Amino acid sequence: MSAACHDGAMRIGVLTGGGDCPGLNPAIRAVVRKCEVRFGDEVIGFRDGWRGVIEDSTMPLDVERCRGILPRGGTILGTSRTNPYRVDNGPERAIATLERHAIDALIAIGGEDTLGVANKLAEQGVPVVGIPKTIDNDLSETDVTIGFDTAVQIAAEAIDRLHTTAESHHRVIVCEVMGRHAGWIATYAGIAGGATVILVPEEPFAIESVCDYLRHRHSSGSYASIVVTAEGAKPAEGTLAIVAPELDQFGHERLGGIGTVVAEEVERRTGYESRVTILGHIQRGGTPSAFDRVLATRFGTAAVEAAHDGDWRQMVALHGAHVERVPIADAVAKLKTLDPELFRSVAEVFFG
Amino acid sequence: MSAACHDGAMRIGVLTGGGDCPGLNPAIRAVVRKCEVRFGDEVIGFRDGWRGVIEDSTMPLDVERCRGILPRGGTILGTSRTNPYRVDNGPERAIATLERHAIDALIAIGGEDTLGVANKLAEQGVPVVGIPKTIDNDLSETDVTIGFDTAVQIAAEAIDRLHTTAESHHRVIVCEVMGRHAGWIATYAGIAGGATVILVPEEPFAIESVCDYLRHRHSSGSYASIVVTAEGAKPAEGTLAIVAPELDQFGHERLGGIGTVVAEEVERRTGYESRVTILGHIQRGGTPSAFDRVLATRFGTAAVEAAHDGDWRQMVALHGAHVERVPIADAVAKLKTLDPELFRSVAEVFFG
Amino acid sequence: MSAACHDGAMRIGVLTGGGDCPGLNPAIRAVVRKCEVRFGDEVIGFRDGWRGVIEDSTMPLDVERCRGILPRGGTILGTSRTNPYRVDNGPERAIATLERHAIDALIAIGGEDTLGVANKLAEQGVPVVGIPKTIDNDLSETDVTIGFDTAVQIAAEAIDRLHTTAESHHRVIVCEVMGRHAGWIATYAGIAGGATVILVPEEPFAIESVCDYLRHRHSSGSYASIVVTAEGAKPAEGTLAIVAPELDQFGHERLGGIGTVVAEEVERRTGYESRVTILGHIQRGGTPSAFDRVLATRFGTAAVEAAHDGDWRQMVALHGAHVERVPIADAVAKLKTLDPELFRSVAEVFFG
Amino acid sequence: MSAACHDGAMRIGVLTGGGDCPGLNPAIRAVVRKCEVRFGDEVIGFRDGWRGVIEDSTMPLDVERCRGILPRGGTILGTSRTNPYRVDNGPERAIATLERHAIDALIAIGGEDTLGVANKLAEQGVPVVGIPKTIDNDLSETDVTIGFDTAVQIAAEAIDRLHTTAESHHRVIVCEVMGRHAGWIATYAGIAGGATVILVPEEPFAIESVCDYLRHRHSSGSYASIVVTAEGAKPAEGTLAIVAPELDQFGHERLGGIGTVVAEEVERRTGYESRVTILGHIQRGGTPSAFDRVLATRFGTAAVEAAHDGDWRQMVALHGAHVERVPIADAVAKLKTLDPELFRSVAEVFFG
Repeated sequence: MSAACHDGAMRIGVLTGGGDCPGLNPAIRAVVRKCEVRFGDEVIGFRDGWRGVIEDSTMPLDVERCRGILPRGGTILGTSRTNPYRVDNGPERAIATLERHAIDALIAIGGEDTLGVANKLAEQGVPVVGIPKTIDNDLSETDVTIGFDTAVQIAAEAIDRLHTTAESHHRVIVCEVMGRHAGWIATYAGIAGGATVILVPEEPFAIESVCDYLRHRHSSGSYASIVVTAEGAKPAEGTLAIVAPELDQFGHERLGGIGTVVAEEVERRTGYESRVTILGHIQRGGTPSAFDRVLATRFGTAAVEAAHDGDWRQMVALHGAHVERVPIADAVAKLKTLDPELFRSVAEVFFG
Repeated sequence: MSAACHDGAMRIGVLTGGGDCPGLNPAIRAVVRKCEVRFGDEVIGFRDGWRGVIEDSTMPLDVERCRGILPRGGTILGTSRTNPYRVDNGPERAIATLERHAIDALIAIGGEDTLGVANKLAEQGVPVVGIPKTIDNDLSETDVTIGFDTAVQIAAEAIDRLHTTAESHHRVIVCEVMGRHAGWIATYAGIAGGATVILVPEEPFAIESVCDYLRHRHSSGSYASIVVTAEGAKPAEGTLAIVAPELDQFGHERLGGIGTVVAEEVERRTGYESRVTILGHIQRGGTPSAFDRVLATRFGTAAVEAAHDGDWRQMVALHGAHVERVPIADAVAKLKTLDPELFRSVAEVFFG
Repeated sequence: MSAACHDGAMRIGVLTGGGDCPGLNPAIRAVVRKCEVRFGDEVIGFRDGWRGVIEDSTMPLDVERCRGILPRGGTILGTSRTNPYRVDNGPERAIATLERHAIDALIAIGGEDTLGVANKLAEQGVPVVGIPKTIDNDLSETDVTIGFDTAVQIAAEAIDRLHTTAESHHRVIVCEVMGRHAGWIATYAGIAGGATVILVPEEPFAIESVCDYLRHRHSSGSYASIVVTAEGAKPAEGTLAIVAPELDQFGHERLGGIGTVVAEEVERRTGYESRVTILGHIQRGGTPSAFDRVLATRFGTAAVEAAHDGDWRQMVALHGAHVERVPIADAVAKLKTLDPELFRSVAEVFFG
Repeated sequence: MSAACHDGAMRIGVLTGGGDCPGLNPAIRAVVRKCEVRFGDEVIGFRDGWRGVIEDSTMPLDVERCRGILPRGGTILGTSRTNPYRVDNGPERAIATLERHAIDALIAIGGEDTLGVANKLAEQGVPVVGIPKTIDNDLSETDVTIGFDTAVQIAAEAIDRLHTTAESHHRVIVCEVMGRHAGWIATYAGIAGGATVILVPEEPFAIESVCDYLRHRHSSGSYASIVVTAEGAKPAEGTLAIVAPELDQFGHERLGGIGTVVAEEVERRTGYESRVTILGHIQRGGTPSAFDRVLATRFGTAAVEAAHDGDWRQMVALHGAHVERVPIADAVAKLKTLDPELFRSVAEVFFG
């Protein structure tokens, strides 16, 4: 493996890891076009994230194979949550695969886990460049990640739909969206959808305050409310006993975590008819928004430029109108949680 | 109350009952415009379905108040599942309200329950015309009901989204759609979305056959599958033990009925990673499709014509390209279940 | 070529002719799946409509090649307006190609022109079955054709968008939609979009009446109006001089036919600021609606059944909830124009 | 009028000027909610941009009146292009109106023209805060303006639709989008839509180079191409004679400017069948994207905070993830044209 700057053609590997999201295919396509058209590079795709690197499962990629994938969600490379550092001899096997294919640069498209692995492998000499994606938008050092805009758009459209049912039936509808550790989707989709209350992991909530606010609305004649909750929202200590999510026999958490609890508690405490809708996987599938297609395209081309500059261990990132490079290490050092200022400034007037 | 044919202006009541759905507002708007512009009628809206008739809760309706509601889901009149025949002196109070307002004709927009009540009240002399709506499409004597097309469109778009995740992660995704007694949404959305398997109430399924078919696909290289199930789908006797849906303390069925069971059984029996998504209320909210807007508009104007013809106890219905009238009694006599021919002809080629 | 009933496997040709529309790919996919899975047939696709039959340009079709095309607009077979009866030895060459490939049945997917050719070839012994498609919906003997529902949905969404601009700027906006000979799209999209005025080929319009109605609305406080016009709408004789559409040097009609004329006349006569938007090709592209996907799938499977029944010269057609067969000759005998009753019943209450 | 910092309640005026766009209503709603709920302010809306200020045409605004406007395009205040500095005694009349209503702060939502006027009035002592909106995104000092994201999304969806027609008919389709002076919409929608060629005002184009590139694609087997052109794109000097846009008798430019010219020239020079579609007003109407709803909400609340800080002559602006303040004078000093680096980096790999 070489880590020097290349003017000439390179052999570039690319993989997508972690949960799938809209925008991965446009990123792959951009990497391939930039490599092939601009630099004459050869591109090898690794299947199913790090699993393909460990197990040497590849597919050749060229402009022709990427035709028509721009509007398609998901990833033609497949993805997995496999972590080489939790697999026997994972890192060694990964490095051996990369050497076997004479990979000059590896472009890893993923979130905290995928890029964390990339950074560790880089410490062992693998020439890595990262592209940030996660619908949760909780990766540091970039304004935004691939997939977030589409997820917010889908969730906001769903909330638009829930309003008319809430109003027709005078109900409280709780909408549970993704976000285990950060409330970005909940906050953006909640603002965009005109939610009455937004619950996020960063701000433990008091269920009785939620109920009080709903009672206040009812007393002023608004009988329909939408509560948007991130899946990771938590009650403030001592305010609501929530048992650990039940696991079924396969070790899956049962559907209906916090959203179901909130809907039931609201109905029990206020007497208002309440329902829950859990958006689930539709937030991460389907055609990417125009914003995500452009972002992914810019990230893909910029990552190839970084590779040809030999600028390893960098992640491409959006800063305002520009794509820049930041150390992967900084991006994965800690989660990017909600700006409390944003949340409070909105909260005080919209669901105050 | 009068039941004779009116050339002149009438006082017309209108209500929406049962679950809300996209298309109710266009139907209300069409009733009001036809009444006001064509006949000079006065229109009184009853709030929240039959509850507003029992409790004399009304709102005046005119062209001005209906401005802007065409593209909006839900119903500006509100709705409920209140049944006068289950309320003390319900029918008497309903009739008294109608007499108090000197209603010459009552246009009831609803499904089996709402129109069943309308028919009973008609036996007691109330001059009633019906408009069929239910997203489930299980009302007899009409090709289609208001709300069905939009529900199918939303479900099909969701299935489109699930495909990309199923493919990227090599998963089986089970998508549970509405339909307690009939598999219309599941079948139409499943066909439109390219489902691998469709489960409907009309055809009890054998879970092992489903698994066999998924194994067959896997063995031929297709590792991603979408199983669409109506919420009312049932396993064939003796093939899969399903306990009655758990009820929570409020008497709600817990989320995750048959869809969750199917996903878990598939994973347990085949070892394929499986997930479930329950579309829930987003199927019944939001802006109506163009088809539903046109259908509701035609039904609304035709219902007013029936009222002015004094053609009571009729429901407007779509037969091919034409709107015709059928007795409400026939429409509610029995559920319209899936055409087995349609289901089999599709099933044999699309999902084994 | 054989024209008898086949229990066994056949060699089936399929082509798409005329303007492309959403739903062609689902129809092709359904034909192929029904043939391959149910009957073990071999399917040959002819490229670019009748041109492929004349010039022997084919592509093999099987289930694998049709994977992923269900949600895609257009046609993987390509299309053209080539008419064998206007090509030297066209019919002879077409028949020779079909014999060369030992085609047992030819399934032609198209509108009036494509199916008209199919019918003529059938008179010369070609075993033909037809599937009706045209976004204009002007083919007789079927309730609806493939493509119409999607075109109406797209046009209605565009009209929704135009409303907000019309209202914000107090403008008249004229929206020109497709429909040279029939006003189906204009009427359905106009009703669905809440148009103020709808102009269709079937009902020549008096521009001064349009202006009077707009003046009436303005005088009652509605300063924003949407006029939807079919591209084939015509002024009543003597009411408005419209020169023949200008042709550019390539023989194309210049953009801005009747829509532009109407907008300019309205502004000149009333003084109200007016604008025109011509929807054009976006009406015929992109992912098909769920309705069109289901319709196309049912038509495709039904056409294969007709072929295996040896029921030649039939077109599959939607009659209410059922797919039936009608003679192609009847379907193409005359255009299906708007039901005047539908148009008048709506017109009298919605646009004066 | 007062220009000092207010802790207490203020009387705040708000107006929307220039072309309408999606996101104006969410901005108005946010201003009103922040004023009323957080500060107890009174809000007066001026109708139709600066015209309402000159002519003293107002509407009271409160939380109740803003209910339901979040998902609606356009502006409930109306808009116009009236410029007080081109009206007799315009500025004096505007100032008199503001004094008559005892306006403590005026929030102007608009683009270059509207904010330019705001800045001039501020020089005369009017306490002004600006909110940037223009679908063209050509306002300086902010990463993005309200309306741009929605316009790009609509245009990208339209281009998705055009692809299938281009492919089915083997055509070149030219899609003309908005952007008189800047190519932001063309570039973003073109990238998102997978355009073959993008033409923008900032980079005069040589028609023969466009044709050469299309020929190159044809020779390598791609017979369908999409050319996206901003309405303000211009041929390089000496490369293509374009006469000034024809004006009709009302002084409107005829439809079909550069897009029509390009389509005709491409067909004439290459012989490839070519068509043009002009998106027009549908780009600026309809429900705002989630991104635009969030942006408008943040801008609206931030503008009220600036008013209460007495921080006049500032425009709220997006910088990365944060909303900050910049002098209006800087924002309107010059147009924000395309980043040439972005355009070139994309152009070199995507369209030759």
